[in-house]
Amino acid sequence: MSNIPDRESIIAAHERVAPFIHRTPVYTCESLNKITGANLFFKCENFQKVGAFKARGGMNAILSLSSEERKSGVATHSSGNHAQAVALAAKENGVKAYIVMPSNSATVKKAAVLGYGAELIECEPTLQAREETLQTVVEKTGATLVHPYDDHRIVEGQSTAAKELIEDVNEKLDFILTPVGGGGMLSGASLAAHYFSTGTKVIGCEPSGADDAYRSFKSKKLVPQINPQTIADGLRTSLGKKPFEIIMRHTEDILLADDAETIAAMQMIWERMKIVVESSSSVPLAALIRNKDQFAGKNVGIVISGGNVDLKELPF
Amino acid sequence: MSNIPDRESIIAAHERVAPFIHRTPVYTCESLNKITGANLFFKCENFQKVGAFKARGGMNAILSLSSEERKSGVATHSSGNHAQAVALAAKENGVKAYIVMPSNSATVKKAAVLGYGAELIECEPTLQAREETLQTVVEKTGATLVHPYDDHRIVEGQSTAAKELIEDVNEKLDFILTPVGGGGMLSGASLAAHYFSTGTKVIGCEPSGADDAYRSFKSKKLVPQINPQTIADGLRTSLGKKPFEIIMRHTEDILLADDAETIAAMQMIWERMKIVVESSSSVPLAALIRNKDQFAGKNVGIVISGGNVDLKELPF
Repeated sequence: MSNIPDRESIIAAHERVAPFIHRTPVYTCESLNKITGANLFFKCENFQKVGAFKARGGMNAILSLSSEERKSGVATHSSGNHAQAVALAAKENGVKAYIVMPSNSATVKKAAVLGYGAELIECEPTLQAREETLQTVVEKTGATLVHPYDDHRIVEGQSTAAKELIEDVNEKLDFILTPVGGGGMLSGASLAAHYFSTGTKVIGCEPSGADDAYRSFKSKKLVPQINPQTIADGLRTSLGKKPFEIIMRHTEDILLADDAETIAAMQMIWERMKIVVESSSSVPLAALIRNKDQFAGKNVGIVISGGNVDLKELPF
Repeated sequence: MSNIPDRESIIAAHERVAPFIHRTPVYTCESLNKITGANLFFKCENFQKVGAFKARGGMNAILSLSSEERKSGVATHSSGNHAQAVALAAKENGVKAYIVMPSNSATVKKAAVLGYGAELIECEPTLQAREETLQTVVEKTGATLVHPYDDHRIVEGQSTAAKELIEDVNEKLDFILTPVGGGGMLSGASLAAHYFSTGTKVIGCEPSGADDAYRSFKSKKLVPQINPQTIADGLRTSLGKKPFEIIMRHTEDILLADDAETIAAMQMIWERMKIVVESSSSVPLAALIRNKDQFAGKNVGIVISGGNVDLKELPF
């Protein structure tokens, strides 16, 4: 138990990051309630700084650095949103940031990282290449590694999104659904529900083509993600060890959605809610629609994880 | 003066429609403030019912019908959003609606009108065809004509968007910018500023390829729009007589933007603000950027008129 962030550490993280992040709105949508038969509450982290919830974890990690660590900077790898989050948080705190990104990351995400003044190092789009490149950067610069999800400071930061969702919805939530990639958001939301909304079940939603969290959860053994095939570029990473430990204790279930279902859900969100969301953000709605009966008549919080899309590469 | 809606009639319209419409949020965006050098306040009517401010005018018109008029239903012509607005308002009040739409209206707009249970009558995409078809429908059915903009009940309804914008922004607005097509929104906003925010200048923004309001305003004589060429499908209509009368008294100026500028502004709004807006809604930001110096350092309200786009036909 001692290894898992406690209630106080999440409250402290929230107080730490609150002045630097947006308290994003919770949206409802009558027409999506009709389609799904559930009462949906969307936590719109696409309106968060850097366009994604990752701003929370990145900010919490940078604010937790010692003054000694600040001097040598920070380094991380990310398919995109965490990269921007660390770059922005570093910039706002006068810290140098080295960002390793897979070469197939969205152009808009690379541009944003450069825009925040970070140093961008591209690598092959495999987990192994990312981690090796990052290791080299850390050895060369002495920068502190800020892992995108396998880090309790990140988990605590991400948990503040679900904490706000719980605080800002007047009704009791029966469920909270989040996407799951590395597991930072899912483990953070699971902790937030555990500490601040007893009885709210947290469910991770994952693309069928990158179902390592599903297989890990069902087999109770961490299975790495090899050669993921999904449009949801934020969810291609392998589940981290630290998030996995929390998920095994506090997450209710993991549900899957095919890319076609995710694309349909994404289009529904754009057309009905008039908001720009990433494909990764659309996996929970897709999974909910696939498992409609389970959620009928229930109050369901959904974390819209981000809104950074390449408008020239839309899937519909 | 007696011909123009007075302060009390706008307050009354607001009280009438308020229970039936969303009080849409006002968004700010640091990165667009940086790009433009102005302090922008976006009134997000893309989040309005039917996805556009037209819900306001449509609802005000239907709620103003006599019980006798309700029996024979209502009829209107529209390139899209007004059609949905009248269809929804009619449905919610148990009134039959006949909607004349140009055959080149966006598929999503036609589908929405049918979804609200209205009768859809398609016509050639010219103003003349629309008005003739509408006349035939009115003669055949006895329905009350609810003109999309040349009607004071509509102007009063639309004015409530700018009224709310004025009420919800804590600072004094130097300018309010709205798109101008038929003139319902622009004349309504001009009246709202006149009655509720003395000194706030209201400016209409129009596509260069459909510049009848610009030419009418400059020549002080109503010039019809013939063969409009613009991507902004909501702004192809001719300025109405009643709006023109109000605009000549209470509007500060009319600015133009080319389609390329409008598309660039639209992409900026999608990418930076993460909201889905129509091309018509992007004309004010495009015109502001074209005339940057005029707005530098000023507080500028911008009415985002709607968010109904065909995702398969995006211009970028």
